[in-house]
Amino acid sequence: MVIVMREGASKKDIDELIALLHEVGAEAHVSQGEFRTVIGVIGDREKVMQMPLEAYAGVEKVVPIMKPYKLVSREFHEEPTVIKVRDAEIGGGHFNIIAGPCSVESEEQVLLAARAAKAAGAEFFRGGAFKPRSSPYSFQGLAEDGLKMLAAARDETGLPVVTEVLDVRDIELVSRYADVLQVGARNMQNFLMLKELGYSEMPILLKRGMSATIEEWMMAAEYILKEGNKKVILCERGIRTFETATRNTLDISSIPIVKGLSHLPIFVDPSHATGVRELVPPLCRAALAAGADGVMVEIHPNPREALCDGSQSLTIDGFGSMMEDLKGLAEYLGRK
Amino acid sequence: MVIVMREGASKKDIDELIALLHEVGAEAHVSQGEFRTVIGVIGDREKVMQMPLEAYAGVEKVVPIMKPYKLVSREFHEEPTVIKVRDAEIGGGHFNIIAGPCSVESEEQVLLAARAAKAAGAEFFRGGAFKPRSSPYSFQGLAEDGLKMLAAARDETGLPVVTEVLDVRDIELVSRYADVLQVGARNMQNFLMLKELGYSEMPILLKRGMSATIEEWMMAAEYILKEGNKKVILCERGIRTFETATRNTLDISSIPIVKGLSHLPIFVDPSHATGVRELVPPLCRAALAAGADGVMVEIHPNPREALCDGSQSLTIDGFGSMMEDLKGLAEYLGRK
Amino acid sequence: MVIVMREGASKKDIDELIALLHEVGAEAHVSQGEFRTVIGVIGDREKVMQMPLEAYAGVEKVVPIMKPYKLVSREFHEEPTVIKVRDAEIGGGHFNIIAGPCSVESEEQVLLAARAAKAAGAEFFRGGAFKPRSSPYSFQGLAEDGLKMLAAARDETGLPVVTEVLDVRDIELVSRYADVLQVGARNMQNFLMLKELGYSEMPILLKRGMSATIEEWMMAAEYILKEGNKKVILCERGIRTFETATRNTLDISSIPIVKGLSHLPIFVDPSHATGVRELVPPLCRAALAAGADGVMVEIHPNPREALCDGSQSLTIDGFGSMMEDLKGLAEYLGRK
Amino acid sequence: MVIVMREGASKKDIDELIALLHEVGAEAHVSQGEFRTVIGVIGDREKVMQMPLEAYAGVEKVVPIMKPYKLVSREFHEEPTVIKVRDAEIGGGHFNIIAGPCSVESEEQVLLAARAAKAAGAEFFRGGAFKPRSSPYSFQGLAEDGLKMLAAARDETGLPVVTEVLDVRDIELVSRYADVLQVGARNMQNFLMLKELGYSEMPILLKRGMSATIEEWMMAAEYILKEGNKKVILCERGIRTFETATRNTLDISSIPIVKGLSHLPIFVDPSHATGVRELVPPLCRAALAAGADGVMVEIHPNPREALCDGSQSLTIDGFGSMMEDLKGLAEYLGRK
Repeated sequence: MVIVMREGASKKDIDELIALLHEVGAEAHVSQGEFRTVIGVIGDREKVMQMPLEAYAGVEKVVPIMKPYKLVSREFHEEPTVIKVRDAEIGGGHFNIIAGPCSVESEEQVLLAARAAKAAGAEFFRGGAFKPRSSPYSFQGLAEDGLKMLAAARDETGLPVVTEVLDVRDIELVSRYADVLQVGARNMQNFLMLKELGYSEMPILLKRGMSATIEEWMMAAEYILKEGNKKVILCERGIRTFETATRNTLDISSIPIVKGLSHLPIFVDPSHATGVRELVPPLCRAALAAGADGVMVEIHPNPREALCDGSQSLTIDGFGSMMEDLKGLAEYLGRK
Repeated sequence: MVIVMREGASKKDIDELIALLHEVGAEAHVSQGEFRTVIGVIGDREKVMQMPLEAYAGVEKVVPIMKPYKLVSREFHEEPTVIKVRDAEIGGGHFNIIAGPCSVESEEQVLLAARAAKAAGAEFFRGGAFKPRSSPYSFQGLAEDGLKMLAAARDETGLPVVTEVLDVRDIELVSRYADVLQVGARNMQNFLMLKELGYSEMPILLKRGMSATIEEWMMAAEYILKEGNKKVILCERGIRTFETATRNTLDISSIPIVKGLSHLPIFVDPSHATGVRELVPPLCRAALAAGADGVMVEIHPNPREALCDGSQSLTIDGFGSMMEDLKGLAEYLGRK
Repeated sequence: MVIVMREGASKKDIDELIALLHEVGAEAHVSQGEFRTVIGVIGDREKVMQMPLEAYAGVEKVVPIMKPYKLVSREFHEEPTVIKVRDAEIGGGHFNIIAGPCSVESEEQVLLAARAAKAAGAEFFRGGAFKPRSSPYSFQGLAEDGLKMLAAARDETGLPVVTEVLDVRDIELVSRYADVLQVGARNMQNFLMLKELGYSEMPILLKRGMSATIEEWMMAAEYILKEGNKKVILCERGIRTFETATRNTLDISSIPIVKGLSHLPIFVDPSHATGVRELVPPLCRAALAAGADGVMVEIHPNPREALCDGSQSLTIDGFGSMMEDLKGLAEYLGRK
Repeated sequence: MVIVMREGASKKDIDELIALLHEVGAEAHVSQGEFRTVIGVIGDREKVMQMPLEAYAGVEKVVPIMKPYKLVSREFHEEPTVIKVRDAEIGGGHFNIIAGPCSVESEEQVLLAARAAKAAGAEFFRGGAFKPRSSPYSFQGLAEDGLKMLAAARDETGLPVVTEVLDVRDIELVSRYADVLQVGARNMQNFLMLKELGYSEMPILLKRGMSATIEEWMMAAEYILKEGNKKVILCERGIRTFETATRNTLDISSIPIVKGLSHLPIFVDPSHATGVRELVPPLCRAALAAGADGVMVEIHPNPREALCDGSQSLTIDGFGSMMEDLKGLAEYLGRK
């Protein structure tokens, strides 16, 4: 950590600050410039981070040097994390497809979609039983009934189920039916939920918040790992920007960045990122080419009847031909 | 709602769509342009909104015309909502100041801050007992002990207490000690919590999410009003943009916009919006001049020892002189 | 175009508006809803767009239906535009690489870089002789001397030269030496320059402005095409967002979107988008996989001595191995 | 400047870097942490800034400590700059209003608007003769004819004229008619134009670019001051964000921030920032209360007939009553 003093900070200010740093066991390296003084601080990160350094007299700004996370970082764990879910493996050279409808609407719809996902070669099935909707007047999901339909679809097809936990009180309930718990973008900084998920043994698919920096996303994952659960899959789903041609802006650069910073697997969800069906296949290809460990896409046996986000769901046919395409490309790129 | 058809949408597509609209009881007004057809839809908003119109063949886009919220709108409730909290009133021409430390750290700190708030003329006292922190290694708040200290400060000073509920499971607990429940920016779209707060009788201070549009913020308030709780106070606290000179960008325009759209009172929190102590007084003046119903500011008896956000807290002296300034201005502007 | 009237707009307001629309020869289709009236307008787009409709009494908002551009659109010109530059072709299934240093620094540097670009298989050579720099104290380019060095490098290697015109007064000068004129992100809305370039016969590489929507970018291209120059190559180079891990956020979705909207070729510049050398190869692969017509990358014989943007330039070796990689992938994807 | 080395940077990397810094006459202060090394650099800013430090082996990032501008800073020039334009003074406690139509449309329109501006108490008159329009099909301004109308309006009313220079080739022409040259948001980083304006003796109103940080804006002003022209007035006009309720997001915090960083006067343009007439009066009040040196607003004798931006123009009556309001508030706040 580097502390930059204001021009004209007094010797007394500087000395007091150094004394305080010594109190928490940190070393202070002082560089005296022509106009201002800069103090390099070396010591126990957690202790130093608790000090409100910017509030001290004479301090202009504090520049962090170390990354604020640890357990999720490559420095801490060099090898890529591989997560086993039933017979499938995520990370470590695999490229997995999670497919399914935005929300669970009926037993028939779920079964049709799951069979189609299986037939086309997807390894995971997704569907929402609890739906976060910006309007209180929109369809909110089938709750436990929906979970049961998802489990039934898994029993038939063998595809492990990925589904969202919307409320901290439902973790146990959802865990009874699902194979992977999804944390939605709006809950990425629901810190108490992250903590509870850290006590769980379920794999967690952690979506990036729509205004979260990559660093904040890493920190959210750190909350889970800190409590003991190491099975975290990151999922890029677009960030909010001024561009309105897509619902959000898919941050494709986050894939190689996260690969460099962390050992955790990273997926991409182009359906939610863009909200436009036609963009899903080219963006899946781009995600694969950029190094993602998998993609999550929405499919619907009949998008016209979808109770949510029908306009971004692929048809069964569209999904099938995209899968052909991705399989070939994954093979060419040497992915499993 | 207006449906814009693609160039080259077939007559069959258009007829099918109209038939479907008739099925849910809506009227369709067709305008046939040289290149494309536009359909004006009139009917029960909720029913039409449930249809996945953009997924139908031939549809290019759907343009909503009506606002998606109702109970929070001025059209629904012309008069400004006035919320009574103990002896204080919020809204309807009043200008109220909520002051206090970012987080509750000790009995002494809380009492000193509350006395200072009272002495300078604030009408509400704030302090966080549960703290949302992006790092799992940062101070997370004193929980129920902190709530007790806040209640004790209220008992001495008479200032009603505003404090954040971070977890849906704590609503009851926090309600036992607080007078106003704060929903933080990260929970603005925690829809299940909003719903629960709708069943409560406590006034709710609803902060704007850092990447929420004004419309989404109105919808979040609608969630609360829909369940019966009409005592919602909105609070602008800055949005996330590319500018890094401030922590967030205070959206001052949101004040007159919200005043036009809604009957609910709106506050401004310049401490969290900017993260910079020196900016708080000019932005409080600006908020008052733009028509806000109040401001919420951070003060700390000793900012240097604050366990969180010390650099944005006003000192007791700084707060006192700002209050003098604001009182005069409020009086000049005819505010109570 | 659809005009949404305010709730409570008077019959007089509506009638006056319709009369005005008739005056410019437009038709007005009125839909009378329960709460408000919506008017569909059909007529000469340019005439209607000149009317300040939102300023009329009773008007709440005006919703455009038609795209505001024409010559750049696929509707106007179905086939992809192919641009011939010396022996190379851009667009129409080709995938081209433009490589070279950020700025021209010396004859030797330019020649080394151009030979390396040629050897590795790039089809175009780039280099800046006029540099837009946010600080007046930074290196501003070698001007005409730099242009001469670029031309000399072309004479030796045969690679056509792409270079930026920074000032409208330099168009003629730069055209004497270059094969493709680049319009930088900061000049994307320099409308008078765009107009002048419309009179030119040179191919134009039009970078997206860092806060330009895709629609505004299309409009900028329309300015050039309108004056007669049809040889426009679009280039995505990242947009400004809150994320600070990269200099800008590469909007990968813009590739398939532009491919859908327009017949013009689109390139991607991952060097400027990210500012990070390590991210260039994965993002070039992603751009190719998403359907881009080419990429533009920075290389430098010795990045440590680069006078600008050294940290985003590939080394000659790094570029060579990336080219191998891209060639294979382009072949697999059936690109020329 | 602080250089942060990567974990595992070799001693050789560090030593080489230090040697290079010594070559340009800079001092290097090394802090050796447990995991990484940090180097504080002290020396001639311009020389060090020219080194591509991030491209050197072992360097992770470079953190600037000093502000990159000088002449515009308060450290360089403590006293607020006061700019005299004919009989008016800008800055130093004055609060000035610039009013007029978005674009010059006819002699009559200009005269009516100028008389109204004068009658209500504005000190400056504005109007655009050259208009930057995102569509090539929109009205582009009357050019020199428009400038003549503006000059005629000044001759009658005595109000100095503020008008935009859109093209570097028109600086001389516009200077013949205008009293203050406006640089629009799209030209804020047209560095060659800024340089030319630095040679001029005209006062310059420099609008903030819609995606420019405050620091970049200061740097743009530095370009002008560096060439000798010290008469720069800054003008905040909103930044581009995800919020669509307003055309841009007025960054009210920029006022006190700029006041802290620079001696230059700062204005606010709420008409362009929001695009909504009703928001102009409350935001003018807010700008004044936050410490701005003035505001620039659009008025039109008949907004319904305005050829551009009619929906954001105040009527003559609306402007008159806003002026009454602002005069009282300015007086209360002790402004001239």
